Amino acid sequence: MIRIAIIGLGLIGASLGMALRNADPKESPLGAVEVIGYDREPRVVRAARGRLAIDREAHSLAEAAREAQIVIVATPVRAIHEVLSELATLLPAGVIVTDVASTKAQVCRWAADLLPATVSFVGGHPMAGRERSGPEAADPDLFREAIYCLTATSATAPQAIEVVEALVRAVGAKPYYIDPEEHDAYVAGISHLPLLLSVGLVTTTSATPAWKEMAALAATGFRDVSRLASGDPQMQRDILLTNPHGLARWIDEMIRFLVTVREQINTGDAPAIEQMLQQAKAARDAWLDSKPHLRPGEADFNAMPTVERPSLLGFRFPKREK
Amino acid sequence: MIRIAIIGLGLIGASLGMALRNADPKESPLGAVEVIGYDREPRVVRAARGRLAIDREAHSLAEAAREAQIVIVATPVRAIHEVLSELATLLPAGVIVTDVASTKAQVCRWAADLLPATVSFVGGHPMAGRERSGPEAADPDLFREAIYCLTATSATAPQAIEVVEALVRAVGAKPYYIDPEEHDAYVAGISHLPLLLSVGLVTTTSATPAWKEMAALAATGFRDVSRLASGDPQMQRDILLTNPHGLARWIDEMIRFLVTVREQINTGDAPAIEQMLQQAKAARDAWLDSKPHLRPGEADFNAMPTVERPSLLGFRFPKREK
Repeated sequence: MIRIAIIGLGLIGASLGMALRNADPKESPLGAVEVIGYDREPRVVRAARGRLAIDREAHSLAEAAREAQIVIVATPVRAIHEVLSELATLLPAGVIVTDVASTKAQVCRWAADLLPATVSFVGGHPMAGRERSGPEAADPDLFREAIYCLTATSATAPQAIEVVEALVRAVGAKPYYIDPEEHDAYVAGISHLPLLLSVGLVTTTSATPAWKEMAALAATGFRDVSRLASGDPQMQRDILLTNPHGLARWIDEMIRFLVTVREQINTGDAPAIEQMLQQAKAARDAWLDSKPHLRPGEADFNAMPTVERPSLLGFRFPKREK
Repeated sequence: MIRIAIIGLGLIGASLGMALRNADPKESPLGAVEVIGYDREPRVVRAARGRLAIDREAHSLAEAAREAQIVIVATPVRAIHEVLSELATLLPAGVIVTDVASTKAQVCRWAADLLPATVSFVGGHPMAGRERSGPEAADPDLFREAIYCLTATSATAPQAIEVVEALVRAVGAKPYYIDPEEHDAYVAGISHLPLLLSVGLVTTTSATPAWKEMAALAATGFRDVSRLASGDPQMQRDILLTNPHGLARWIDEMIRFLVTVREQINTGDAPAIEQMLQQAKAARDAWLDSKPHLRPGEADFNAMPTVERPSLLGFRFPKREK
């Protein structure tokens, strides 16, 4: 039996616990597991227990570290530094450590700096999430068929890679090996830039005095583009702060795009605008075509609510002019 | 019986035809109607007939205008100028003209300039749409419970307002009277800015040499924020070109936002970033709370696919480093 400690029992930590405990020991590449859970917040631990995400609770990081063969650090990104510092003095030789953070370069540097050579580290980032956070939103199927980024270097012990890869497969995900810097550059464009655009849309529109009237007209287009703004602010803050280099590039690209489009609209350059719109449509449609399905049982990757309609609750009919 | 001519049988024109023809004459505020359809493209007319969107076809604008009491111009925005110019010489006195364009100020100016005083114009904009276009995507329920913006001035004949309002209610929508300039300023923020951000996300990311690798990692966050980039390029082009003033303001606001965030990320200003993220989440969550339902029978306005997962078709496992 393999003992796995999960440090941080939020959405991802608790979902991993549920997925690991649900896996059939006869079919899982990890075999039988025991999941030890630790979180600074007793409320979170209770909720994780309630979701059957852990076998038992550790009352300190030391207690969690003492018996584990695998330690999964599932805290927000910036807390990982502190957790790894403490673990460095606690972990017995041979323990394998991994994390689940959305940025990888800084975390991998911390691991190299802080952890003793007797401990192996493989960075991880499951490409799975939800708007809602906490163990209450945890789902043992969250990782099913998901791509799970893993970082490893020539210095990483082959056995550590095998064990973490088995863990990824045990929760139903697919390992995808990638360089930490490359990972951060890519997700800056396809994950963190969309987050910033969502937040920017809500920040700019909701700050105007006319927001109430605008909000009455806003429908599914606004809803979809703004969706990521409803995520967990602390997690998002850490993501933005630990990927400054990757983000700066995409922010600059986006500003350049907006300046170009503003000029095209001002000068009424119809051919340039139409070409841009056609190229974007072609690129997105090709991308969608490459993703014909979601997880088993889930709706089409393409299936989106398509009717733009604001609700009428709270709607006041303005006096009509005649 | 009221004869209604629909000029342009794309998604909105054909959906209006279907909705008008489906309405029970005993319950509809318009009573019995006959729908005459015209489109420059014979292929589009055939498709609209196939969807039972029209009672009969007109073979020219003149034929459509000759008998109609209400004319709905449902062409892309910039074609409306030409259509109104032609209609001006064709329409008998007393005819009521309306449109369905996504921008209203310029269309209302065209109508005032071009149409004779014997013809009434009330601008319209149903807050309803789909990604797919053309009569093939038409839906008689597209406008059910939708907000339908209407413009009218002190010069508009009260009877024209009553008739267009009856038309809006006949297709199941809710009239919302608004000044054309105000309309354009509002939709620039909640509809055209999201469109530009969607297009900008796809344009910037898909232009990079690493797009193929990035695309493999892109999941539902990217999909949702980029969704509007899959719309009809010609319709979008016209929308952007006929709302330059409204858009310029929001493009500038968005650039200011991105410059501010870039600085906050560069200097590692965690409190400012967290405050921004918290305010955006609060604003969006409050907006969502004000929209608890979509159309009858449709899923929750809140219900979104939440699991981020790219498909694995075409996925190649990179060689792992050891």
